[in-house]
Amino acid sequence: MKAVVVGATGAVGTEMLSIIAERKFPVTELVPTASERSAGAALRFGTKEVKAVALTKEIFDGADFAFFCLDSRLALEWTPVALDAGCTVIDNSSAYRMRSDVPLVVPEVNGDLLTGAERLIAKPNCTTAIALTALGPLHRVFELRSVVAASYQAASGAGAAAVRELRSQTRDALDGRETETRALPRRIAFNLFPQIGGFVSDGYTEEEDKLEKESRRILDAPELRVSATCVRVPVERAHSVALHATFAERVTPEKATETLRTASGVRVLEGEDYPTPLDADGGDDVLVGRIRRDRVFEGGLAFWVVGDQLRKGAALNAVQIAERILEVRGK
Amino acid sequence: MKAVVVGATGAVGTEMLSIIAERKFPVTELVPTASERSAGAALRFGTKEVKAVALTKEIFDGADFAFFCLDSRLALEWTPVALDAGCTVIDNSSAYRMRSDVPLVVPEVNGDLLTGAERLIAKPNCTTAIALTALGPLHRVFELRSVVAASYQAASGAGAAAVRELRSQTRDALDGRETETRALPRRIAFNLFPQIGGFVSDGYTEEEDKLEKESRRILDAPELRVSATCVRVPVERAHSVALHATFAERVTPEKATETLRTASGVRVLEGEDYPTPLDADGGDDVLVGRIRRDRVFEGGLAFWVVGDQLRKGAALNAVQIAERILEVRGK
Repeated sequence: MKAVVVGATGAVGTEMLSIIAERKFPVTELVPTASERSAGAALRFGTKEVKAVALTKEIFDGADFAFFCLDSRLALEWTPVALDAGCTVIDNSSAYRMRSDVPLVVPEVNGDLLTGAERLIAKPNCTTAIALTALGPLHRVFELRSVVAASYQAASGAGAAAVRELRSQTRDALDGRETETRALPRRIAFNLFPQIGGFVSDGYTEEEDKLEKESRRILDAPELRVSATCVRVPVERAHSVALHATFAERVTPEKATETLRTASGVRVLEGEDYPTPLDADGGDDVLVGRIRRDRVFEGGLAFWVVGDQLRKGAALNAVQIAERILEVRGK
Repeated sequence: MKAVVVGATGAVGTEMLSIIAERKFPVTELVPTASERSAGAALRFGTKEVKAVALTKEIFDGADFAFFCLDSRLALEWTPVALDAGCTVIDNSSAYRMRSDVPLVVPEVNGDLLTGAERLIAKPNCTTAIALTALGPLHRVFELRSVVAASYQAASGAGAAAVRELRSQTRDALDGRETETRALPRRIAFNLFPQIGGFVSDGYTEEEDKLEKESRRILDAPELRVSATCVRVPVERAHSVALHATFAERVTPEKATETLRTASGVRVLEGEDYPTPLDADGGDDVLVGRIRRDRVFEGGLAFWVVGDQLRKGAALNAVQIAERILEVRGK
């Protein structure tokens, strides 16, 4: 089996290589691509090293899977090429997420809808993937109605350049030098800002809008309401989200804890223990803590989720989709 | 007029001295106190320097005001001494905030209840003071019913030692050294955690609980519901809060903006502009931005507030209380 990782040198691409290796995804040939500038770069793939090649039409020849880790514009340009070559494409960008003919999948939540016949599958926004890994199992039992969410999103969600900016700005700030802001809209060192993506018409940001629209699709809950504030924070890796959710049924913290304890991809921290971004960094599970009754919504639930947004929020979710497809095709 | 600043070497105490000087609060004698260990330390008071003295019964003799910047335990021990000496005491701790015979005051919101006869006045928790400076004027017009809040609280809210810990841990993390955690419950460098204070019985933290209980008192809204998640973030100074509020009346973003534009102590940022902690650092105003309709609560409002929690959240609020008392006593 041949797989192409398109955009393998970025924050998500690098993680994709390590997850494919770690999970022993059954590839016999792995081709990582990079921009012309980065072509030839040596990349770690498990214990081996692979060389990044420039993105051309030919690299998709004979490939079974193409994992796209590009921005939407480049994804729209190159996914048709991969599809023409006969690849099954799993796209990390937002290009196809709202297209009704393209499944949008978090395997633990709606992986069942995959038949194996799909040629193009989208994975959701990273914050959505993390929040839904915990909200999905609760929705299945109690029927989710509304979510008020506030996120605490790591710099790496904005790419490798944003992480470098966080580190260099922080060093400058500690040493009393002027800081320089390029990769992010505001200074991130010892600071934070409530803007991820551009603004949509009603004053929400694109990131906040995605959390509502993508959740509706993945949970098959077209009436679901999500009111979010998405904030970039000076953390390197792992997104956290404070969630306040209501359900068709009254949910007690005890019932929610019981449901989440057996949920796939979730680890629950109980009592006065709770997860922080450093606890989720590098891990596969979405960590849930601070499960308590909501004080505003009668019968609702407040809780705290943290996940590594480069893994569960992106690369891991994409590889899990491919695994699921292999599984149903094999049946 | 003689004023004593009790606990003048801490994060709030230092700020108290600078605000008293800045606002030309009419003192003729200012006595800063410190622990025995720090007594004798030279402190900046405007353009002058003052020497910290050890806390004794005698220092309150002849004093008109005592600004207490101690923790609750020490406040409970020493406020009776100051009151016995005839001082008007303004307490920053949580010791008296829920006592029905002690007014709990944010001057812009409920300063009108001060008659001048009060001898002991409490100021609220810093996050509460910041949130209410914006929620108060909206409550007056539209009648606040519920608030879902997520906070992003600076290290300095946990005192000067926590700021030192943030800086030293951050430097260690950047240099690849082990970090050491002492002042805060978890590592704060490039990390964050949803715990401020201990836990109360229903799984909320003390900080989250205060936001509900103190808001009810200050707004005189005993039925108000507040469901909060309070989070410590790696920011040095200024707290941010994402707020989702409902009112007895439907509120449009336009009406809310109009109300807040003329509110005392508030500055509104409109359109795609929004405040960050660095914008509020060192300032007196609570900055409000991202005012938009709430997507979950019909007729509700979502917005973002940021304030310097050592100033508006603590020292400034305390000095404003003293100013108000002088004003009503003078009438």
